[in-house]
Amino acid sequence: MPLTRLEAFSDGVFAIAITLLVLELKVPTQGTGLLHDLLESWREYFGYLISFAFIGGIWMAHSELTRFLKASNGTLLRLNLLLLLFVSFMPHTTSVMTEHTDDEGRHVAVVLFGLNVLLATLVMSLMIRYAAHHESLVDNQAAEHELRAFERERRAALSFQVVSVVTGIFLPDVAIVLYLVVALALIFDPRPWLRRRRHLAA
Amino acid sequence: MPLTRLEAFSDGVFAIAITLLVLELKVPTQGTGLLHDLLESWREYFGYLISFAFIGGIWMAHSELTRFLKASNGTLLRLNLLLLLFVSFMPHTTSVMTEHTDDEGRHVAVVLFGLNVLLATLVMSLMIRYAAHHESLVDNQAAEHELRAFERERRAALSFQVVSVVTGIFLPDVAIVLYLVVALALIFDPRPWLRRRRHLAA
Amino acid sequence: MPLTRLEAFSDGVFAIAITLLVLELKVPTQGTGLLHDLLESWREYFGYLISFAFIGGIWMAHSELTRFLKASNGTLLRLNLLLLLFVSFMPHTTSVMTEHTDDEGRHVAVVLFGLNVLLATLVMSLMIRYAAHHESLVDNQAAEHELRAFERERRAALSFQVVSVVTGIFLPDVAIVLYLVVALALIFDPRPWLRRRRHLAA
Amino acid sequence: MPLTRLEAFSDGVFAIAITLLVLELKVPTQGTGLLHDLLESWREYFGYLISFAFIGGIWMAHSELTRFLKASNGTLLRLNLLLLLFVSFMPHTTSVMTEHTDDEGRHVAVVLFGLNVLLATLVMSLMIRYAAHHESLVDNQAAEHELRAFERERRAALSFQVVSVVTGIFLPDVAIVLYLVVALALIFDPRPWLRRRRHLAA
Repeated sequence: MPLTRLEAFSDGVFAIAITLLVLELKVPTQGTGLLHDLLESWREYFGYLISFAFIGGIWMAHSELTRFLKASNGTLLRLNLLLLLFVSFMPHTTSVMTEHTDDEGRHVAVVLFGLNVLLATLVMSLMIRYAAHHESLVDNQAAEHELRAFERERRAALSFQVVSVVTGIFLPDVAIVLYLVVALALIFDPRPWLRRRRHLAA
Repeated sequence: MPLTRLEAFSDGVFAIAITLLVLELKVPTQGTGLLHDLLESWREYFGYLISFAFIGGIWMAHSELTRFLKASNGTLLRLNLLLLLFVSFMPHTTSVMTEHTDDEGRHVAVVLFGLNVLLATLVMSLMIRYAAHHESLVDNQAAEHELRAFERERRAALSFQVVSVVTGIFLPDVAIVLYLVVALALIFDPRPWLRRRRHLAA
Repeated sequence: MPLTRLEAFSDGVFAIAITLLVLELKVPTQGTGLLHDLLESWREYFGYLISFAFIGGIWMAHSELTRFLKASNGTLLRLNLLLLLFVSFMPHTTSVMTEHTDDEGRHVAVVLFGLNVLLATLVMSLMIRYAAHHESLVDNQAAEHELRAFERERRAALSFQVVSVVTGIFLPDVAIVLYLVVALALIFDPRPWLRRRRHLAA
Repeated sequence: MPLTRLEAFSDGVFAIAITLLVLELKVPTQGTGLLHDLLESWREYFGYLISFAFIGGIWMAHSELTRFLKASNGTLLRLNLLLLLFVSFMPHTTSVMTEHTDDEGRHVAVVLFGLNVLLATLVMSLMIRYAAHHESLVDNQAAEHELRAFERERRAALSFQVVSVVTGIFLPDVAIVLYLVVALALIFDPRPWLRRRRHLAA
């Protein structure tokens, strides 16, 4: 099966999920003290940023995966649908989190968001792992090695996300900061970058 | 006519329809008892899942169709528009269903959603059938046979969906469970998979 | 300039505009008499259908245009942006129309929607005309002739839309029916179809 | 890294951001005096137009950039994510601006929107600059020169936007008009056009 449709459909869902987040941001109705009101909703903006960073990071991993593939199959399409289920759910869990970061529901809200992200990141890793073990999907043996190394490297981020979610049960405020660290690590993961540099230099 | 635009436009509509569903999920406003409130809206999440599975299943059939095509024509574009009409309508009928699964309107709501899905699935089958009978659209004779077999196999899911909708008139709760079965069957249909395996082994 | 970005961006905007319409449909809140309430909002469904048909028809003309092109240029990109401005505005004018078809604002609402569609259809024709007169954009001389004929044939639909809008000033209900006729004519225009058939037979 | 995913994902985000703006437009509820009510909300329509023009202008620069590229890399992907963050934020700052153009919050609202646009335009210029200085990304040396000239020419628009934002602190109404000028300049920038013409004539 060709990859084009899988890529186009996924890019569409990623693009919409990442852009829909903006609809959740509330516009202050009062003109007096507008700057104050905007600054007061910093939690919403912070949630927007974290969510954007996570979806962006997963998208980067997704495009990193498909550039090593030459074909798709039914199982990969189904794993991809599962990934998109969790990605398209993120605007909802982000809303729940930003709505409740300062009331009694903050433990539940922060853990819920963390679990959503964890599941998305996990399925992303499963997809990479699945592809890396199926010769018929991968471009060549070098690409196979790339993907296996990529999947191994992602385990650190995954473990860190598990720790963040568990932290959220007790210290939701700390968990939110940890989430941002994981999101940025997914976008700026220094290791594959260093590795590729070494690879190019060799 | 080339296929690229038909594919890109359809992928866009599928991606948006499947992602818009999340906007219908309500965010609980009270922090106290947040977990309880979230669990209470399980019907909404269940509706989200069913709808996601159906749109995902129709998308999979759509990409299965286009990979056997080499060209498009006016009639196929028009059938495709009709399909997209029913697909983009699904976020609305999903909302109606999840809003009314526990009141007097549940019979109407469940049947309405079922009919929407039925029409989408039916037009999808019509498209496959139409393409399979027009040599100018299909890649080669093997692809033609593939598509005819694919269309025949989809009739089981279609009949089952008719039964589910009729069940909805009398037993809406049972119908919702049947819908989930049909949706999963569209995604995990074991038959084309088995057949293709046999085909590859031969 | 290559055409790919113009096509991808336009497909995105068309796909979103055509799918956003569903967000304007209201979900009845009362379970009792749900069927009655749904049937009562037939104007909304009718507006949804007309709007869907127009956007679908303009999309078909747009893909008909680009398949004859080999390149793009700055002026075509700008005309295309203008087209997308009017297309992405249609969910709003559709809402205004369906909200006011049965009150005193119906003349204004129906004319507003008609003007929006007219402007979109007009810019679409301008794009075809512009491309047909610029050799550097068109695939070959045969394609140039195709496009000129296509643009001439669209003038009938355009004139009919002008008549519909003027009708809307006096008889809004009649205008809505005329709009549907124009929309269906854009999708099922029999003339280019007949012409192409003759062309293929020759 | 290939460019296709970067282009498809960006086109998706641009298309959604530019189309979501329409959801912010309010539909008047009263039928009596509908035309008057619509004309009264001219600020909203004006904001819609400015925002559409800016996103359209940035999209044009983005496609102007990618047509000179032959590949992508991690840094470019990250800069692109940052650009999309500011682009997808624009429907929010547009709403804030149009909601408050006639009350005490107008200074804050107009400056906020202007800063959002400025950041997006700035990151766009950074991307062009970055690409122009990395041989591995650019098609050939001629393309490198093109991009450097393109980036230099964009500095005028950037400076003008800085002036507009500063104006917004004191004279918000004037700033809005200046914004429209910058937006139109981004779409109709006469200089690269004239230059390319000369280039072709030579």
